[in-house]
Amino acid sequence: MENINSRFQMKDTFFSELEEKIRKVVLPYQEAVLRDEVEGVAKSHAIDNFRAAAEMLREGSCKEEFYGMVFQDSDVAKWLEAAAYSLQLCPDAELEAHCDEIIDIVAAAQHEDGYLNTYFTVKEPGRRWTDLSECHELYCAGHMMEAAVAYADATGKTKLLDVMCKFADHIYDHFIIKGNPGFPGHEEVELALLRMYRKTGEEKYKELAAHFINARGDGGAFFKKESAERGWFLWGKDPAAPEYNQTHLPVREQKDAVGHAVRAVYLYTGMADLALETGDEELKQACRNLYQSITRKRMYLTGGIGSAYEGEAFTTDYHLPNDTAYAETCAAVGLCFFLRHMLRMEKKGEYADVMERALYNGVLGGMQLDGKRFFYVNPLEAVPGTSGVAASMRHALPERPGWFACACCPPNVARLLGSVAEYAYSVEDGALYQHLFLGGTIDMEKEFGGKVTVECDYPRSGHILYTFAPDGAEPMDVKLAVRIPGYAKKVQILRNGSVFVPDIEDGYAYIQGLFRAGDSLIVNVDMSARRVYPNRHIAADTAKIAFLRGPLVYCAEGTDNDGDVLGLRVSRTAPIRELPGEAPDGMPMLTVAGSRIETSDELYSFDAPEKEPVVIKLIPYYTWGNRGLNEMRVWIPKE
Amino acid sequence: MENINSRFQMKDTFFSELEEKIRKVVLPYQEAVLRDEVEGVAKSHAIDNFRAAAEMLREGSCKEEFYGMVFQDSDVAKWLEAAAYSLQLCPDAELEAHCDEIIDIVAAAQHEDGYLNTYFTVKEPGRRWTDLSECHELYCAGHMMEAAVAYADATGKTKLLDVMCKFADHIYDHFIIKGNPGFPGHEEVELALLRMYRKTGEEKYKELAAHFINARGDGGAFFKKESAERGWFLWGKDPAAPEYNQTHLPVREQKDAVGHAVRAVYLYTGMADLALETGDEELKQACRNLYQSITRKRMYLTGGIGSAYEGEAFTTDYHLPNDTAYAETCAAVGLCFFLRHMLRMEKKGEYADVMERALYNGVLGGMQLDGKRFFYVNPLEAVPGTSGVAASMRHALPERPGWFACACCPPNVARLLGSVAEYAYSVEDGALYQHLFLGGTIDMEKEFGGKVTVECDYPRSGHILYTFAPDGAEPMDVKLAVRIPGYAKKVQILRNGSVFVPDIEDGYAYIQGLFRAGDSLIVNVDMSARRVYPNRHIAADTAKIAFLRGPLVYCAEGTDNDGDVLGLRVSRTAPIRELPGEAPDGMPMLTVAGSRIETSDELYSFDAPEKEPVVIKLIPYYTWGNRGLNEMRVWIPKE
Repeated sequence: MENINSRFQMKDTFFSELEEKIRKVVLPYQEAVLRDEVEGVAKSHAIDNFRAAAEMLREGSCKEEFYGMVFQDSDVAKWLEAAAYSLQLCPDAELEAHCDEIIDIVAAAQHEDGYLNTYFTVKEPGRRWTDLSECHELYCAGHMMEAAVAYADATGKTKLLDVMCKFADHIYDHFIIKGNPGFPGHEEVELALLRMYRKTGEEKYKELAAHFINARGDGGAFFKKESAERGWFLWGKDPAAPEYNQTHLPVREQKDAVGHAVRAVYLYTGMADLALETGDEELKQACRNLYQSITRKRMYLTGGIGSAYEGEAFTTDYHLPNDTAYAETCAAVGLCFFLRHMLRMEKKGEYADVMERALYNGVLGGMQLDGKRFFYVNPLEAVPGTSGVAASMRHALPERPGWFACACCPPNVARLLGSVAEYAYSVEDGALYQHLFLGGTIDMEKEFGGKVTVECDYPRSGHILYTFAPDGAEPMDVKLAVRIPGYAKKVQILRNGSVFVPDIEDGYAYIQGLFRAGDSLIVNVDMSARRVYPNRHIAADTAKIAFLRGPLVYCAEGTDNDGDVLGLRVSRTAPIRELPGEAPDGMPMLTVAGSRIETSDELYSFDAPEKEPVVIKLIPYYTWGNRGLNEMRVWIPKE
Repeated sequence: MENINSRFQMKDTFFSELEEKIRKVVLPYQEAVLRDEVEGVAKSHAIDNFRAAAEMLREGSCKEEFYGMVFQDSDVAKWLEAAAYSLQLCPDAELEAHCDEIIDIVAAAQHEDGYLNTYFTVKEPGRRWTDLSECHELYCAGHMMEAAVAYADATGKTKLLDVMCKFADHIYDHFIIKGNPGFPGHEEVELALLRMYRKTGEEKYKELAAHFINARGDGGAFFKKESAERGWFLWGKDPAAPEYNQTHLPVREQKDAVGHAVRAVYLYTGMADLALETGDEELKQACRNLYQSITRKRMYLTGGIGSAYEGEAFTTDYHLPNDTAYAETCAAVGLCFFLRHMLRMEKKGEYADVMERALYNGVLGGMQLDGKRFFYVNPLEAVPGTSGVAASMRHALPERPGWFACACCPPNVARLLGSVAEYAYSVEDGALYQHLFLGGTIDMEKEFGGKVTVECDYPRSGHILYTFAPDGAEPMDVKLAVRIPGYAKKVQILRNGSVFVPDIEDGYAYIQGLFRAGDSLIVNVDMSARRVYPNRHIAADTAKIAFLRGPLVYCAEGTDNDGDVLGLRVSRTAPIRELPGEAPDGMPMLTVAGSRIETSDELYSFDAPEKEPVVIKLIPYYTWGNRGLNEMRVWIPKE
């Protein structure tokens, strides 16, 4: 798998701004939080935990106690990974120095034998590897491995990579050579070990990833045994139901996406990646089945997954409540991870369609436009006074809170957005694949003999311009595969102004030919806003419509609609108007005719409600909750 | 307050059958469960707990342990109370002998000093009165007091009443004379003490009820103090939020119905009853405010209350989700208790309208038609495969389960239905009030000089016939107040065949005059089915309609609609047909034109769904779930 970041120069009207926001706001803010320098937010202590662990190793005791979640280490790891992507996109000596300092702190917390986890070093020495079910040791290891690979890619520095190789060797020793049973309760290390394998070429990392994936699926027997033998408990004696952490069936037999949604998609990511590395057809088919389960039965329109707060989990087919949705930001991030590997497996535009939907809605909606606040939970309907307040809806906040104690989502968003080019492009079989539309210049010297520049104003516009810069006088021999989005009613391709008819296969337009400096290729994607209709089995969406424009899901928010969204009914047929730049973040606003109902103060009445015609205003879902407390609805009842 | 049961002979086409079902099926089955004689259901041990407590008192130890919930005693109490009503309606020597035997067992478990609670006697001796917050001592006491009063009313036997007077005296001694602080975490004893007061004339029981009601509302301070001092814990160290058990504000300042719905309405029942006994205007106004909060903002169409499983509780205004509704059967029962006293307070037809709605839907829906299974939770929408299965919906079963470990609802239904005449009639200021339509003969010799017989086939028909049987040759001097139901478009009254125009005030028709044998009075209530529209703030009911016929809420169930309810859309204007006897339990079925939508297998589609016209069939809500696993919806989207 190519590392795209290293040959890509981003210049995009949408993601460059996001990248800058992450570099200038998100990363510094999160670093300050990790260092406990921000007043008025939940204490993190994540970096001090590493300091304490190092002190414990040096002195045999330490002054400060461990603080935070059992997976607190992963916050540092995800921040480091996001910082690495940022450094790759935009070198910054100061940020790099900060990273180096933090890496030194992390490295000092590593045991002689390679083990690295501050919770166990500081708080539970002697209890290593005794609670794989809930203690997240392998999860934290995985995140730090990902950071190590990304940091080595970005800077060429291998100190953290060396640390994590040593830890990976230790894990290999424990589980493979010594033959201790088990696999992680929260998947993550599998996909990370595969990244380590590709970075280092070390076969045993792939072997270890395969081991953890293949050991999974004993119906919960191992976690039950582990719990019975352990005699100490983090969160209670009984392990979770086996579905919760996807141990209900061997992975190749899993057909329904179940349990904790983040764990699920992290597992599926590892499965897809492993299947690609090994050519395991049965594992590939399991990935396809799980993809089908998610996208045909268990996914919100926004690409959000996990219908229930309880277990942060998938529930049942078509159970997609809008107001109590969990749809954790991290789960949408993880869905992008999974789909990226599905796209490596087979070039099917629908994988990219879903990935794009999740990215522009389920992921981006998690972050306040100013980059300072985050949603953990992403409902598709919010009612002030009830959302975040009613007992069954405490999780579904109607506004983004500040940093929270379990701070998994903010750095996850940062690391995905920082590496978005890896999702937008791939170079495979000598061809440049464009899965998502992202402006910039990509070095294709080796394959095409020059550079390709992509200019666009996506997702505001569907006009995508490709220009070419051959290395010398010879034309470039270009092999381009551009995704034709599933949402587009039509797509037109122009080569030097003339209509070009490409081969289209499974949602990709294959364009091959010689291109010179000054030649142009234009892809015009019809972005017109469209009505979307839910499957009839989705009880929560009955008789409602949603609106999409390009990859963006739209919603009605109170502030644009006289403070009342629940009273809106939308026309089934009226044309949808687009008002460029009128929505937050400079996005097009949509308007469509409809009506507003009025009822008496009675709770239930024999009198039909009164109606008055209104123009309903819609904004992109990812921009909701940025203008105070408001009613919000993605799915709007029909007139 | 008159005891109606003692002067009423029920002969009703609807409730007589229910009474027989309770007598022949429900009471024997529940007794067998209480005696642990039923295989395959959760063990009760409730009667054995009393035996064990008696043994403990006799021997200083006991062979069997306490088993069950901390409030297990109340199951016996509620059964005894229901049995008492049954005996009053239909004497039965065998049932009475069983009751006497159980009363002997209960009496033997009473301590010398009057204290009676098997949990503390057997399991926690020495810890009496140290966890008023959760240990339900006063709650259990209250239920046994209610049983004692009912049994004395029914049989004239006072053994249980004597036992409970002794216990009430003990409680008075503890809280009033000795001045120990506190009040019950689960309200019930307040309303029970007022019944004891009316039965015995003992002023101190009224004083004690007033004490518990007035002591309430310290913002949770007492329960917090109690927990801190106690050092032992039933269900966790931190007491519930003060709203949970209505201790957030002094009762006279409470305006919103909050917290555990059953606790709430039991409290409000005691408040209303006390206000009536003392003439406390401030307390009356608080009851009116709470009534308003429930009925204008926080009640399902079925009279169900409690929107959330979490805390079995009220949530926020207009938060009335249909599929995750809690709407506990006991809460609807308790709402009837409360409204009965509101009707004593002031004759307003709307109190009776709501009480009737709760009775015929929220309460009756709790019981399987065969009387053998019960719903604890009463959702207004059920989707097989998701209801009772999805993590957030485990409580909302789509079919009634058998007996459950926390068996509060079945005997609560039985005791309400067994005493339904007390809710249907009252004799006040020399007038006979008919709040609900219930056939039978009521002895009005003292007031009118004869008997009044009511014949009706309610709620199948709205034709109510009154005939009169004077004691002698003199005509009866009748003063009748008949409720004019709020659902009726019109009501016609005929006296001996001629239209009679009564005084109508606040939903009651006042009819006064001399009636002889052979005279008739007919009240024709228009029962025509009607569409009901939800308040626009109820997000869950947006753009949906429900159907009422008389007091009955209707619903669509899969079995009548080709297995598919989610796909139904109902006409806004088509006439509603009534098919007598076609619905379960011999009730009228409603049919109305509509359509059924079909969609592709895609989860979301750009194609509008296909429609075909259908006739939608509707059955009374209380009869749902009697014909296998089915989709069910009360609120149906409009076409």
